[in-house]
Amino acid sequence: MYITGIGRTKFGKLDLNLHEMMLEAASKALADAKTPLEKIDAIFLSNNLSGLNQGQLHLNSLLATILQTDIPIIRVESTCASGGVTFYNSLFCLSRFKNILVLGVEKMSDIDSKQLSTNIGTTSDVELDQRQGFIFPVGGAMIIERYEKRYGPVMDELAELSLKNHENGNLNEYAHFYGKQVTLEKIKSSPVIVGKLRLYDCSPTSDGAVAFVVSTEKRDGRSVRIASCEMATGPLSLSLNPGTSMPAQVAACQRALKAAGMKIGDIDLIEIHDGYTIIELITMEDIGLCRRGEAPSLIRKGYTRRDGKKPVNTDGGLKADGHPIGATGLAQMYEAVVQLRGEAGERQVSARTALTHNIGGMVGSCVVSVFRRGE
Amino acid sequence: MYITGIGRTKFGKLDLNLHEMMLEAASKALADAKTPLEKIDAIFLSNNLSGLNQGQLHLNSLLATILQTDIPIIRVESTCASGGVTFYNSLFCLSRFKNILVLGVEKMSDIDSKQLSTNIGTTSDVELDQRQGFIFPVGGAMIIERYEKRYGPVMDELAELSLKNHENGNLNEYAHFYGKQVTLEKIKSSPVIVGKLRLYDCSPTSDGAVAFVVSTEKRDGRSVRIASCEMATGPLSLSLNPGTSMPAQVAACQRALKAAGMKIGDIDLIEIHDGYTIIELITMEDIGLCRRGEAPSLIRKGYTRRDGKKPVNTDGGLKADGHPIGATGLAQMYEAVVQLRGEAGERQVSARTALTHNIGGMVGSCVVSVFRRGE
Repeated sequence: MYITGIGRTKFGKLDLNLHEMMLEAASKALADAKTPLEKIDAIFLSNNLSGLNQGQLHLNSLLATILQTDIPIIRVESTCASGGVTFYNSLFCLSRFKNILVLGVEKMSDIDSKQLSTNIGTTSDVELDQRQGFIFPVGGAMIIERYEKRYGPVMDELAELSLKNHENGNLNEYAHFYGKQVTLEKIKSSPVIVGKLRLYDCSPTSDGAVAFVVSTEKRDGRSVRIASCEMATGPLSLSLNPGTSMPAQVAACQRALKAAGMKIGDIDLIEIHDGYTIIELITMEDIGLCRRGEAPSLIRKGYTRRDGKKPVNTDGGLKADGHPIGATGLAQMYEAVVQLRGEAGERQVSARTALTHNIGGMVGSCVVSVFRRGE
Repeated sequence: MYITGIGRTKFGKLDLNLHEMMLEAASKALADAKTPLEKIDAIFLSNNLSGLNQGQLHLNSLLATILQTDIPIIRVESTCASGGVTFYNSLFCLSRFKNILVLGVEKMSDIDSKQLSTNIGTTSDVELDQRQGFIFPVGGAMIIERYEKRYGPVMDELAELSLKNHENGNLNEYAHFYGKQVTLEKIKSSPVIVGKLRLYDCSPTSDGAVAFVVSTEKRDGRSVRIASCEMATGPLSLSLNPGTSMPAQVAACQRALKAAGMKIGDIDLIEIHDGYTIIELITMEDIGLCRRGEAPSLIRKGYTRRDGKKPVNTDGGLKADGHPIGATGLAQMYEAVVQLRGEAGERQVSARTALTHNIGGMVGSCVVSVFRRGE
């Protein structure tokens, strides 16, 4: 199985609606794959919040309307892991189909911020989270507290992660914060959101869409091989997991590496779902880059910087590339493909293999995928 | 591929929440299949409105929490076709997995009826429908108008369909309207909803859940073979299709019969998605039971009654069994399985083959499945 074509919109506050973003990303992916829509057998569509944000469900039929097609189109929702879960789900159908389109989209900037927070809150547990006043930034702050109690101070290292991701995002013209000048001082003095969590520890509210053509056979040397893609689930509420490790992401990563016949040391480039900087840090440990408590030390050494041993989030990550929920998991894979093709320009790293890590909730759903340069 | 176990809740206004309904249906299906959860490789979860109705998205993780599992769980949304689309989607993964659970659930009775109408309205096109004041009963009434203009009066026949489905539902102890005494007079004098559409032309607002175990191999003589399952999509808005035929359901039915190597004449039992009585009527024509304009004549002859040549909706259909949106498509298949097993009791018909027809919108998504008695 190969990703034979990719397309995306810029991420950020866009003057585009769901229709327009889907059409732009899909058209670009089809053109990049040199595959007309008539050769696409089915479409898998990722979106989280269009029912609540735009009052528009049945999005698969909206896409059929826009593309004027009658092929199967399936919409999958799994909050911030929607992109990864949709991709995971789509691959099964390649036992029957030759070419499919995978598309993720989210429109968030047209919603009042308080309403948006409520809408996003619906992806946490009604009983255990929502009724207790839990919102996701609180979850980020809670994990910082837990981590510091167990392993010591970590805020300087989180600021380093934020800076790294902003610097990477400044080399990615599609990124939400492309062109934004950010310094450590700016990060460390940014407004406190809750507890120790500051604004620059949080991913932004973005619009955007990403699409791939996925095929059973490679098209040319630019096709990127899908070595594995695995999923695991876990509890919906953070209150059911008191640790600094998220079992679902440990399981998904182990499954994906095993299925690809690789170890984490074999991976050249990693995209981690840094919804909050602390998530990037604990995930470094959960996927086995180091032992528990050692991620801060790796960060201080610049281990995951673009010029480090194991670059993480070369596109800027969720922090700087952006976080249009339904598209995010696919944006991570988009970066993996661009890097493995050697088309990443100024932010190019040396990579023959890449791993992407996409989560929903904290952590209720996790998809980890491994890619190899087309040979 | 076989359905090796089935389970469902009663449909109706239930004193059960999403958790409880999912658990009841899943537990029954696992017990019926004599397959413990540990042998289930993945779960596919159908739901339409939990984000809007219960403020609960990321339902796949909620299910992982309830079942205390970490296996892949994928949630699919496709409005009233959610059940069928989830089933269609799930079958691809049997190229890799042996046993999966397919589960559909919807909770509707705890929502204020005006709010519920708005929530259901989100499954129509924001621009072409919602902003014009379109709600689904209007769509039902519009199709009646179109049909009568082209082919003559039809209200008596629609009342016959409603009566047939209520009579069937009275033999189905799980049905929403089990035990309700209904007469032609009661149907014809029921309140007008809009245009010529009356209350008894409409399916009700139901809670409920249905689950299956689907396996690559049959378990025993009670296993029902999935001969085919196909999907087609179409325009989101009824305003884009001025006819009395719905291309997506014509396409899905033709694909499913072709894939099963059958003709409509080979099918013994049919479950049609009668969200409104007029949908059952036009679908009789779209799936090829008769030519255009001839469905009223077939209905007058009792062709689709339980004792007719081609029984339709022996469980009571959406009209009387109920319409818990995310579970509906699976409930139709549940009836197919019960009938093909010969376990339908008083409502048993003679059937070796069955076809189920599940739609979303009018008609933006359609899934048609064909089943054979296990041999």
